[in-house]
Amino acid sequence: MTPGLPDSTFLYIIEIIGTFAFAISGIRLAAYKKFDLFGAYVVGLVTAIGGGTLRDVLLDIPVFWMQTWVYLGVTGAALGIVIIFRKLLVSMNKALFIFDTIGLALFVVIGIEKSLSADYPMWVAIVMGVITGSFGGVVRDILINVEPLFFRKDIYATACLAGGLLYWAAFSLKLPPVLTQSICGITIIVLRMLAIHYNWCLPQLNVNSVKAENELTDNN
Amino acid sequence: MTPGLPDSTFLYIIEIIGTFAFAISGIRLAAYKKFDLFGAYVVGLVTAIGGGTLRDVLLDIPVFWMQTWVYLGVTGAALGIVIIFRKLLVSMNKALFIFDTIGLALFVVIGIEKSLSADYPMWVAIVMGVITGSFGGVVRDILINVEPLFFRKDIYATACLAGGLLYWAAFSLKLPPVLTQSICGITIIVLRMLAIHYNWCLPQLNVNSVKAENELTDNN
Amino acid sequence: MTPGLPDSTFLYIIEIIGTFAFAISGIRLAAYKKFDLFGAYVVGLVTAIGGGTLRDVLLDIPVFWMQTWVYLGVTGAALGIVIIFRKLLVSMNKALFIFDTIGLALFVVIGIEKSLSADYPMWVAIVMGVITGSFGGVVRDILINVEPLFFRKDIYATACLAGGLLYWAAFSLKLPPVLTQSICGITIIVLRMLAIHYNWCLPQLNVNSVKAENELTDNN
Repeated sequence: MTPGLPDSTFLYIIEIIGTFAFAISGIRLAAYKKFDLFGAYVVGLVTAIGGGTLRDVLLDIPVFWMQTWVYLGVTGAALGIVIIFRKLLVSMNKALFIFDTIGLALFVVIGIEKSLSADYPMWVAIVMGVITGSFGGVVRDILINVEPLFFRKDIYATACLAGGLLYWAAFSLKLPPVLTQSICGITIIVLRMLAIHYNWCLPQLNVNSVKAENELTDNN
Repeated sequence: MTPGLPDSTFLYIIEIIGTFAFAISGIRLAAYKKFDLFGAYVVGLVTAIGGGTLRDVLLDIPVFWMQTWVYLGVTGAALGIVIIFRKLLVSMNKALFIFDTIGLALFVVIGIEKSLSADYPMWVAIVMGVITGSFGGVVRDILINVEPLFFRKDIYATACLAGGLLYWAAFSLKLPPVLTQSICGITIIVLRMLAIHYNWCLPQLNVNSVKAENELTDNN
Repeated sequence: MTPGLPDSTFLYIIEIIGTFAFAISGIRLAAYKKFDLFGAYVVGLVTAIGGGTLRDVLLDIPVFWMQTWVYLGVTGAALGIVIIFRKLLVSMNKALFIFDTIGLALFVVIGIEKSLSADYPMWVAIVMGVITGSFGGVVRDILINVEPLFFRKDIYATACLAGGLLYWAAFSLKLPPVLTQSICGITIIVLRMLAIHYNWCLPQLNVNSVKAENELTDNN
C-alpha cells in the first residue's frame, strides 16, 4: 500500500480490482493469440504489474509486487476466471471495461503518490502516474507482437495525463488528499468513458510529404 | 559467482557453458534473420545475460555481467565459433540443445540462490529463477521481431517453475544445498528433454467465443 | 550535466541539440506510422532518453531526465517543430542527419564519462557509451514494431564502439580530457558519415546451411 493514503482499505480493494481487470485484459488478448496457459499467465501478470515495476525501478524504490504475493495470486485468480467463465465474460465486456478504467484511474493516483512520497517533484510524479497506468499495456502489446494500441487508438494515456495535471492543480490549491485523489481519478474515468462513447481520438501527424528516417539514411 | 555455492568452480564452469550455449542460440537466430556481425553479437549477448540483468535490476543488486568481462568474452567466443564452425554446428544440434538445457537449469538455480542471499522470500526467488532462465530468450525474440516462442511452444518456462518448486520443497526439508540444487537442476533438464521428445505442451486457452479487447473497445 | 566535463556549457548545448535531433527522428518515424500526437511524443521521448535511462538503471545512479524537466521540454519542442515545419523538414534531411550524428557522438562521450565517474572500469564505460547512443533507437523500433534497424543497416553501433575504444586509448595515454572526448566524438561522426556516404556495412553471417533454433527444437 502507498503510505499516506487516507481510507487505505477502500483504495487497496480498488487496487486489487484494477490489478484483476488489467490481468484479465492481458490474459484474454494472449488467449486470442493462442498462447498456452503459462504464456497467458505471464502476459496477464505483465499487463497488471508492468507499469508499477518500471515506475519502481526508475524511482529506485523496492518493486511493489515483490513485497507481497497478492499480485501474483490475483493474476492466478484472473486466469482461473477466464478459463471457467470464458463464455460469460463475453457478455461482461462492459463490466470489465469499467473495472479496467477504475483500475487505470487508481494506478495513476498510486503512481503519483508513490513518487511524491519518494520526494520527487510533481512533474516526475505525473510522468510516473502515466507510466503506472500505461506501460503494462505497452509491454503486453510488445509480447503478443502487435503495435502498442494506445499510440494510435484512443486517448488512454492522454486521459492519465489530464488526470495527473488536475491532481497537480488540486494539490497546489491544498485541497484535502481524498478530494485531490478523487478529482484525478474521476477525471480519468470520465474522460476515458466519453472517449470510447464518442470515439474521440487525438489527431495524427499529417506526414504525406515526410520521409521516414530509414529512407533518409538510404538517400544521404 | 553466487556466494555460498558449494563446489563453486564446477558450477562456475557450468554457468560459463550455459552462457556460451545461450549466446550461440541467440547468434544463430540472428544469423538466420540476416543480422550483421555486431547485431548478431548483441542478440547473443542479450540472450545470454538478459535474464540475469532483469533479475539483478529487480533485486536492486549489482548487475552480474558488469563485475567481470567474462560474459562479454564468452559471447565473443560464441560468435567466433559460429563463424568458423557454422557447417559443423548443424550436425551438433543435439549437443547444443543439451548445453542449452544444462545452462538453463543452472541459470534457474543461480537466480534462486542470488535472490535468497539478498534476503528475499522463496516465492520471489522462484520467480527470479524463472526470469533468469527465460527472459533472455524473450528479449531475443523481441529484438528479432518474432513472437516470443516460449509463450506457445513448449514447456520451457514451466520446467523452470517446476524446478523452482522442487527447490522450495527440498529447501523446506533442509536437504543439503548441493542436493537441493541438483534436484532443481535435474528436474528442469529431464522435464525439458521429455517435453521435446514427446512433444509436450501446455493446453491453450479455448477462446473461440471470446472477443479480444481491441474489438471490445471498438464496440462499446 | 556530467560532472568533470570541461567547458560544460558548450557540451550541454550539444547534448540538448542531440536530444532534440534524436526526438525528431523518433517523432518522424512515429508520424510515418500514423501514431497520434501523444504516441509520437512518447516515441520521440523514448528515442531521446531511452539509452541514458537504461545506462542509469544499470549503473544504479539517479535517472538523468528525472533531475530536470529540460529533456521532456526539448522533446515537446521537437514535436512542435515537426508539426509546424513538416514540409520544410523534408528538405532538411541532411542537417537533421548531422545533428543526429553529433548528438550520437556526444551521447557516447557522456555515457562513458558517467560510468567512469561512478567508478566502473573502462570496458563497462564503453558498453554504457554504446548503450547510451544506441538503445533509444532500438526501443523506438520495437515500439513502432519494426525490426531494430541498426542490427542490419549500417555501422551505427559499431561507430559508437570504435569511438569508445579510441576514448580508451586516449585515456590510457593520459591525454587531456577535452582531447580524449574530441577523439572519441569525432571518430564516431566521421565513421558514420563515411559509412552512409560509401554505404559501408558489416558482413552478415552466412547461414544458408544453418538451421534456426526453432526448427532445431521441432526436430529433436
